[in-house]
Amino acid sequence: MKNLIVTDVPRPDPADVAKLREYGVATIHEAMGRVGSLGPDIRPIQQGLSIAGPAVTALCWPGDNLMIHAAVEQCGEGDVLVVGSAAPSTHGMFGELFATALSYRGVPGVISDTAVRDTRELREMGFGAWSRYVSAQGTVKATAGHVNLPLLIAGQRIAAGDIVVADDDGVVVVPRAKIGETIVASQARLEKEAATRAAFQEGQLGLDRYGLRPLLADLGVEYRTHAEAEAAGELA
Amino acid sequence: MKNLIVTDVPRPDPADVAKLREYGVATIHEAMGRVGSLGPDIRPIQQGLSIAGPAVTALCWPGDNLMIHAAVEQCGEGDVLVVGSAAPSTHGMFGELFATALSYRGVPGVISDTAVRDTRELREMGFGAWSRYVSAQGTVKATAGHVNLPLLIAGQRIAAGDIVVADDDGVVVVPRAKIGETIVASQARLEKEAATRAAFQEGQLGLDRYGLRPLLADLGVEYRTHAEAEAAGELA
Amino acid sequence: MKNLIVTDVPRPDPADVAKLREYGVATIHEAMGRVGSLGPDIRPIQQGLSIAGPAVTALCWPGDNLMIHAAVEQCGEGDVLVVGSAAPSTHGMFGELFATALSYRGVPGVISDTAVRDTRELREMGFGAWSRYVSAQGTVKATAGHVNLPLLIAGQRIAAGDIVVADDDGVVVVPRAKIGETIVASQARLEKEAATRAAFQEGQLGLDRYGLRPLLADLGVEYRTHAEAEAAGELA
Amino acid sequence: MKNLIVTDVPRPDPADVAKLREYGVATIHEAMGRVGSLGPDIRPIQQGLSIAGPAVTALCWPGDNLMIHAAVEQCGEGDVLVVGSAAPSTHGMFGELFATALSYRGVPGVISDTAVRDTRELREMGFGAWSRYVSAQGTVKATAGHVNLPLLIAGQRIAAGDIVVADDDGVVVVPRAKIGETIVASQARLEKEAATRAAFQEGQLGLDRYGLRPLLADLGVEYRTHAEAEAAGELA
Amino acid sequence: MKNLIVTDVPRPDPADVAKLREYGVATIHEAMGRVGSLGPDIRPIQQGLSIAGPAVTALCWPGDNLMIHAAVEQCGEGDVLVVGSAAPSTHGMFGELFATALSYRGVPGVISDTAVRDTRELREMGFGAWSRYVSAQGTVKATAGHVNLPLLIAGQRIAAGDIVVADDDGVVVVPRAKIGETIVASQARLEKEAATRAAFQEGQLGLDRYGLRPLLADLGVEYRTHAEAEAAGELA
Amino acid sequence: MKNLIVTDVPRPDPADVAKLREYGVATIHEAMGRVGSLGPDIRPIQQGLSIAGPAVTALCWPGDNLMIHAAVEQCGEGDVLVVGSAAPSTHGMFGELFATALSYRGVPGVISDTAVRDTRELREMGFGAWSRYVSAQGTVKATAGHVNLPLLIAGQRIAAGDIVVADDDGVVVVPRAKIGETIVASQARLEKEAATRAAFQEGQLGLDRYGLRPLLADLGVEYRTHAEAEAAGELA
Repeated sequence: MKNLIVTDVPRPDPADVAKLREYGVATIHEAMGRVGSLGPDIRPIQQGLSIAGPAVTALCWPGDNLMIHAAVEQCGEGDVLVVGSAAPSTHGMFGELFATALSYRGVPGVISDTAVRDTRELREMGFGAWSRYVSAQGTVKATAGHVNLPLLIAGQRIAAGDIVVADDDGVVVVPRAKIGETIVASQARLEKEAATRAAFQEGQLGLDRYGLRPLLADLGVEYRTHAEAEAAGELA
Repeated sequence: MKNLIVTDVPRPDPADVAKLREYGVATIHEAMGRVGSLGPDIRPIQQGLSIAGPAVTALCWPGDNLMIHAAVEQCGEGDVLVVGSAAPSTHGMFGELFATALSYRGVPGVISDTAVRDTRELREMGFGAWSRYVSAQGTVKATAGHVNLPLLIAGQRIAAGDIVVADDDGVVVVPRAKIGETIVASQARLEKEAATRAAFQEGQLGLDRYGLRPLLADLGVEYRTHAEAEAAGELA
Repeated sequence: MKNLIVTDVPRPDPADVAKLREYGVATIHEAMGRVGSLGPDIRPIQQGLSIAGPAVTALCWPGDNLMIHAAVEQCGEGDVLVVGSAAPSTHGMFGELFATALSYRGVPGVISDTAVRDTRELREMGFGAWSRYVSAQGTVKATAGHVNLPLLIAGQRIAAGDIVVADDDGVVVVPRAKIGETIVASQARLEKEAATRAAFQEGQLGLDRYGLRPLLADLGVEYRTHAEAEAAGELA
Repeated sequence: MKNLIVTDVPRPDPADVAKLREYGVATIHEAMGRVGSLGPDIRPIQQGLSIAGPAVTALCWPGDNLMIHAAVEQCGEGDVLVVGSAAPSTHGMFGELFATALSYRGVPGVISDTAVRDTRELREMGFGAWSRYVSAQGTVKATAGHVNLPLLIAGQRIAAGDIVVADDDGVVVVPRAKIGETIVASQARLEKEAATRAAFQEGQLGLDRYGLRPLLADLGVEYRTHAEAEAAGELA
Repeated sequence: MKNLIVTDVPRPDPADVAKLREYGVATIHEAMGRVGSLGPDIRPIQQGLSIAGPAVTALCWPGDNLMIHAAVEQCGEGDVLVVGSAAPSTHGMFGELFATALSYRGVPGVISDTAVRDTRELREMGFGAWSRYVSAQGTVKATAGHVNLPLLIAGQRIAAGDIVVADDDGVVVVPRAKIGETIVASQARLEKEAATRAAFQEGQLGLDRYGLRPLLADLGVEYRTHAEAEAAGELA
Repeated sequence: MKNLIVTDVPRPDPADVAKLREYGVATIHEAMGRVGSLGPDIRPIQQGLSIAGPAVTALCWPGDNLMIHAAVEQCGEGDVLVVGSAAPSTHGMFGELFATALSYRGVPGVISDTAVRDTRELREMGFGAWSRYVSAQGTVKATAGHVNLPLLIAGQRIAAGDIVVADDDGVVVVPRAKIGETIVASQARLEKEAATRAAFQEGQLGLDRYGLRPLLADLGVEYRTHAEAEAAGELA
């Protein structure tokens, strides 16, 4: 583990960040070709809040939040703090005091592979938090880690300056090099979804819209009435 | 795995469905003799919503929502879509577009053994969802499965036309053949609970109401004051 | 397993209970030297509710709530019922009828190592519940256990008369013998946190406030600009 | 939950049982169309042992082995005891004394959805055991359940008289009504696998044997040398 | 958390330790009234090894094995090292070098609430290990903890000088104050089990030996032939 | 997800591979600065086997082993197949037929983030397997993925041509660019461990060898006799 704190991370264009926040996690994940999601275990502590911003990353030792202190200094307006752990940890490494310090710097929220605490206070402050656990369990400040080197959380690589987007569906990461193409693809997907939504609102079926009937037939899927299936012993 | 889509499933009497929705999950589960619950892992994405309806079942391959498209066509007014997976899966197989198509058909909600996504949109639409996970992770449409054959979810068998009831306590399944007796037993239980509630509100104890004092004595349970127990070393 | 029901448990001073409720779980846990937390798996079924009170403890057999009936009788004004299980259990051992009986006796909530049910009704009643699971699964009344002997939940010992405090961050236990010192330490911590909060609101960094820069240097943590790190191949 | 003990269960032909044991779990599971497996969580306590036999089923209350005693009486030569639980349970419900009683009756092993204990003694006796847990935790005998009614374990239905097959890969269930077709399909699969094995031992590739190259092309999978991929930035 | 290292712990009579090792985990657990087991998650890395001895306890910070070094010095001939963690941890805190140092001091094995590593070497040395995980993940030496204060592992309290017994069924703890009565009860249970085993080997049933037939009848359990049950629709 | 099959991956020097196999997982992990371990959940199906080799990576869709077929063709003498999944999957994607095809090509084993099956046959063949699950559950061949692009398994990045080392302690990954420095550091660590082992075999303590006594004092750790601690109420 390299003990480095990386400064002066290039940030993406705030207009791009704003667009991605608007698209939301599910749309972006699909637009990127179904990658980048942090999966079902990194959950929001609040409902109805969406944030996006360039990641400032911190890797901590389990039960030790020293490197979060170092990371706070690297956070600027609009950044999102992303906290990883060198091994699985249920410690409540992040709470209301950190949120206070980060709010001063214009940070809208935190993503954590461990636990957060003071969740009521965070909700009252409107400071967003997505984490694996909620726990009051406290930490020490004794072991080195790194800031703004790439993290791996829930099987995803998150580098400093990548855009993280978080809402009620979880968290998705857009690598810095893919921001442009992701916006294009998300916009296209959004328009396609709008057309699909309109069609569905008028009763069209996905089977027809996506042309799936031939595929079902190719796969050998057959139709049977309930009475036929019952008679054939297929409902046992 | 049979590749079948079963049509023309007989539906139960809507008046019975309405009664069961009114009784709620906990009461029905007790009234059926403590069976039928999908347990603690199939959780609602919203609070305060209760739904009930005949099940339309879909069995998907992990990460593949093809059969949900086929199932939508089989859903009618008041049905509840129940989605199973041929193996454990964290994919977000169901989202806002499916909910739109199902709302058009009068379906109040979905029960899923995998994940749902677009949870904020689902809540805003008032479309109920109970699932094992929430995840934005997307799916393909490539592998066959079945619609309206019996599913096994969380150790419960769910056949097409069985009534599923879902609320903040989870989900319970009432087999078609047991609807009548379940309504009778739920009504009886409701009345018994109302009487018990009234008694408890006036201070009666369960120990007395259920006649449990002799049972405690039979099981060898003894009473001791704190001082006696401490003196006897029983509080270590 | 001793089959005992212990009566006449000495209760702590209600003024102390009130103070601890005010401090909250995270502050108390820190003030006690980072012990006493029930960890991330005993979760609230509601948001924004804080309770505190002396524990009345019940140890049940999995799937059997007989001893909760015995425990209700031992509960008085302001007590908190704490339910353990002799082995892991997902049963919904506690619901609205118990909450009704306990509300009559002035009990503000329950902590359970198993499941609760009727969660919507509990929320509507304002009766607090923190539990490992939510499940409608019902129980029998057939096996002995104990009341007001010490329990072990989530690795914490909870004796009758200890104060349990529960809020959105989880649950913490303050042993009877430590109430005084915990209040002193919590108050001190609160004041320290208030000063820190004020400093953070004006932009001070934890690195400076806690004097962590020399520690980082001692641990061999180095600073690098992003450009330098990239050139050195440290961002791979 | 019905409180029934079903006697005189029809048993399958022992010659069929012997054939299925020979085919093994993985082959049978495939031959049945990839159904019937109890999945990765029901694991053997020994290596290199294969058993098969008609199921005698017992449903117990968590932590209560009363119904196993009732089930023992229903076991005959060659039967396999299958133990389910009305809710998740980590109790060591089955140990060396039960194995002794069952060995007397000619039973080769047990499948349990809870825990077994005395594992060293079971291995020394050559009595097979597949279970979710190993635990010394003891049980009571206080609550009713049923014997030889269908069980649901790990999402599979197991009825009395169905054949269970268990080896190092886990457990598979063959419903009584499918024994004949499963033997035919398993034998066919075995022969197909033997041919494939012979071809693979001589260096043929699955890509060619199963004709998968056109499928890869259809799915848009492209080939690239490492040097090309690196140059195109595709290895990041 | 108290930062203490407790020395000069009184040890139990080695003859008592030897007897308990002979009885084994399952028998002792039953004899103590079904308490003291560390449950199914603390598993042996080897088969067929049984150890027993007074506990020397160490509480570590997650990912930090400093206090194990301090604990080694407190270990004497026949002691068993028991390692706890202040929060869940998957670190491989204990390996072959520690085992070498402990073997020199006559320690037969280790019980750990976290991970062990070098498992092949430990097996070759004949040094027993029971742990929650196996992992090569290394540790730091930076944070205080305690030695020979009571630990809580898997819901059990383990004090220095308590006897821990470990075999293929897991681990059980016998508190120092209960050694005498546990030996008496284990011996009685052993003799009772020998008689039961002899009876079972001659074909007696538990139903008769334990007099369970009247209990089944009291609980309303009825007998039905398979044909009757099928006709009554009870096998669905 | 890119649908690519990368060919002509540069392989490391076989002499380096042999050295790393000799060092073993725990030593390499420490030598690399405590990174690279796949953690406690990727477990061997056999004991006493050590393998090492350059990774050939395959990313599959859950329940679909199409890309393993494509990967087999890319495997050469001494390579190790590493199988990832686009989402969590318990499918038995790899069994004896694949092992046969790979043995022909000189591959010593497989690492899988999902399940393997035919474990008895694999052990008999001496073909090593480390996986998250063991399951007979079968798969389809319908969905694209990639071969020899980087995978993320258990939080570690594994690129084609990286050396994977696997033994009883689990699996560690050595990135191609770090092979040289890892060998140097492992050799140094091995020599240091040999010296430590020799010292421990003669009774030296880690406290003295690593100079930890001053650190304990700095951290405020105090020594107390058991009698003193008991008198001070510190053993409660």
